[in-house]
Amino acid sequence: MSRYGVHFAAGLPQSVQIYEVGARDGLQNEQRPVPTAVKTEFITRLAGAGLTTVEATSFVHPKWVPQLADAGEVVDALRGLSGVRLPVLVPNEAGLRRALDHGVTDIAVFVSATEAFSRRNLNRTVAESLAMTEQVITGAREAGGDRISVRGYVSMCFGDPWEGETSIDAVVGVGSRLLEMGCYELSLGDTIGVGTPGHVRRLIAAFGEAGHPASRLAVHFHDTYGQALANTLAALQSGVRTVDASAGGLGGCPYAKSATGNLATEDLVWQLHGLGIDTGVDLDALVRTSLWMADHLGRPSPSRVVRALAAENG
Amino acid sequence: MSRYGVHFAAGLPQSVQIYEVGARDGLQNEQRPVPTAVKTEFITRLAGAGLTTVEATSFVHPKWVPQLADAGEVVDALRGLSGVRLPVLVPNEAGLRRALDHGVTDIAVFVSATEAFSRRNLNRTVAESLAMTEQVITGAREAGGDRISVRGYVSMCFGDPWEGETSIDAVVGVGSRLLEMGCYELSLGDTIGVGTPGHVRRLIAAFGEAGHPASRLAVHFHDTYGQALANTLAALQSGVRTVDASAGGLGGCPYAKSATGNLATEDLVWQLHGLGIDTGVDLDALVRTSLWMADHLGRPSPSRVVRALAAENG
Repeated sequence: MSRYGVHFAAGLPQSVQIYEVGARDGLQNEQRPVPTAVKTEFITRLAGAGLTTVEATSFVHPKWVPQLADAGEVVDALRGLSGVRLPVLVPNEAGLRRALDHGVTDIAVFVSATEAFSRRNLNRTVAESLAMTEQVITGAREAGGDRISVRGYVSMCFGDPWEGETSIDAVVGVGSRLLEMGCYELSLGDTIGVGTPGHVRRLIAAFGEAGHPASRLAVHFHDTYGQALANTLAALQSGVRTVDASAGGLGGCPYAKSATGNLATEDLVWQLHGLGIDTGVDLDALVRTSLWMADHLGRPSPSRVVRALAAENG
Repeated sequence: MSRYGVHFAAGLPQSVQIYEVGARDGLQNEQRPVPTAVKTEFITRLAGAGLTTVEATSFVHPKWVPQLADAGEVVDALRGLSGVRLPVLVPNEAGLRRALDHGVTDIAVFVSATEAFSRRNLNRTVAESLAMTEQVITGAREAGGDRISVRGYVSMCFGDPWEGETSIDAVVGVGSRLLEMGCYELSLGDTIGVGTPGHVRRLIAAFGEAGHPASRLAVHFHDTYGQALANTLAALQSGVRTVDASAGGLGGCPYAKSATGNLATEDLVWQLHGLGIDTGVDLDALVRTSLWMADHLGRPSPSRVVRALAAENG
C-alpha cells in the first residue's frame, strides 16, 4: 500500500504501537456464539499479520457476556503462539483468579470516567469501581509480582449519553488513580465517539500537567461520528504512541445508539503507513483476515479500507 | 451540538467556509431522475441551514449527465434566493454559453492532475484540457468582466486508479496554471480518497513554495478510505480555510470502486464545531435536510453523524 505513502514532516513518530482489540472488544457484543476455534484462528491470523499486541478475551462472568465464556480455553489454545502479547480483560477478583489459573500475566482493568455510565454499566459508583480495581491489581501483584503487567482503560472520557460532555478533571482524576495503582499504561476511551481533536489535545495536555506524560497514554476511539482518525492524528501530535483499534472495525458500544463502533485497524494502518509511520502490520494480510472473519459473522466489515480494497481486488 | 465542544489551542482558524457540493457532485451520479423541484427545495433547505455557498448544478451536456439536464431550470428557480452563492460547474464553452444565458456569474471549471484520468474521463490530455479551460475563462471574462468569478477544481491530486500516487509537481503545475488564468480559488480534489495527512501538508507546502498561499486553496476529500476528516484537520493546520463537503455524504466518484464517496458536511461540521470553529451552519437543520433527501433517494445517508443523530433522536 506504500505506493500512496508520503513522509510527514511535522513531529510525528517513526512508529506506532497498535493495541488490537477486535478479538475481545470486537466480539463481546456478537449475539451468535463464535466457536472457540474461530476465535483462536482469528487471533493467530492477527498475529501473523504483524500485530504484536492482541487482547485475546475477557474473564468476565459468563452470565454477563456469554460470548466470552470460553476465555480460559482461548488462552490455553494460544499458549504456543510466540511474538505476540495476549492481554486479557479482568473485571474483578473472580475474573483475576480465573485468568491466573490459566497462566495469564498480562491483564487489563477498566473504570468509567462518569458516574452515570459506571452505575448503569457496572452497577457501582466510580469510587467503588476504583476500590475494586485496586483489589484486583493488589491481588495480581501478590500472585505474580512484577511478572504481571496491568493496563488501565478509562471509558467515556469525552462524553456520556446521560451526562453530556465529560469533564477533563474527572478523566484525569480516575486515570491518575489507575496509574498510581501501577497500571503501566492508560487507554483513554471515547466510548460513544463524540470527541473532537481539540478535546483530545486538551485532555492529553491535562494529563501532562498532572505529571503523566503522553508516553503513558493510549487512545481508544470509536468512529460513531466519523472522528476517530482525526482524533488519532491529534493524539499522535500530542505525543501518544499507542493506539487501540479493532480489526475490520468489529464491535462497538451497545450504549451508543448508532451502528458504527470501534476504529478499524485497517483504516488506522492506511493513515499511519501513508504518514510514513511504521506499524509492523501487513495491511493486505490484515484485510484478508477481516474478510475471513466477516464471512464467519455473516455481514460485511464496516471498515472503509477493507471495503475499498475488497472492491479493488474483487 | 456544542455540549461536546471544546476550544482548540493550536493555531486553528476561528471560522471555516464550507463549499457545499451535494446538489451537484452529490446528485450527478444518481441513476434515477431527481425532480427539479426536489433539487431546488434541497438547495433552499441547505441555504436555510446556514450554508452560504452551494454549488447548484453543472452545465454539462445532458448526453453525459442526464441527471443535470435541468441545470437552467434549477438556476432560474433559485433566482430569488438571497444570502447564498450558487456557483455552477461549467465543463466547456457550450456549457458556459448556457450558464451565461441563465444569468450565472459564479462558475467552476475543472482539470485532472493526471493524464490517465484526463484521457479516460474527459477524452483529452491535461494540456488540451487546460487550453479548453482557458477558453472558457476568457469567454467568461469577455461576457461578464470582473462580475464573473471562477473557481478551479483539480481532480486526482493524491492518487489515480491507473497511475498510483500523483506527483506533487503535476498538481502544482496544473493548479498554478488555473490560478494564473484567473481562478480566485483552487479546490484540490482527492477523487479516490487515498490521500493521508502528510501528503496533504506536503502538497499545500509545495503550492506555498510556488507562490500560492493556502488562502487560495480549498480541499475536496473523499472518505473512501476513511481519511477525509484527518486530511481536513491537516489542511486546516496548513492554513486552508475553505473545505468542500456534501450534505449527507451524497455522491462519490464512479471511478473509485468502493461505495463511500464525498466527505459528509455533517461529519465535517461536527468536527469543526467540536474544535470551536464557526461554520454558520445549524447542524440539526442540516441533518433534517439530509434525512429528507435520503427519503427521496430511497436509501440511508452514509454520513456517520446523520446516522448517529437520527438514531439518538429516533
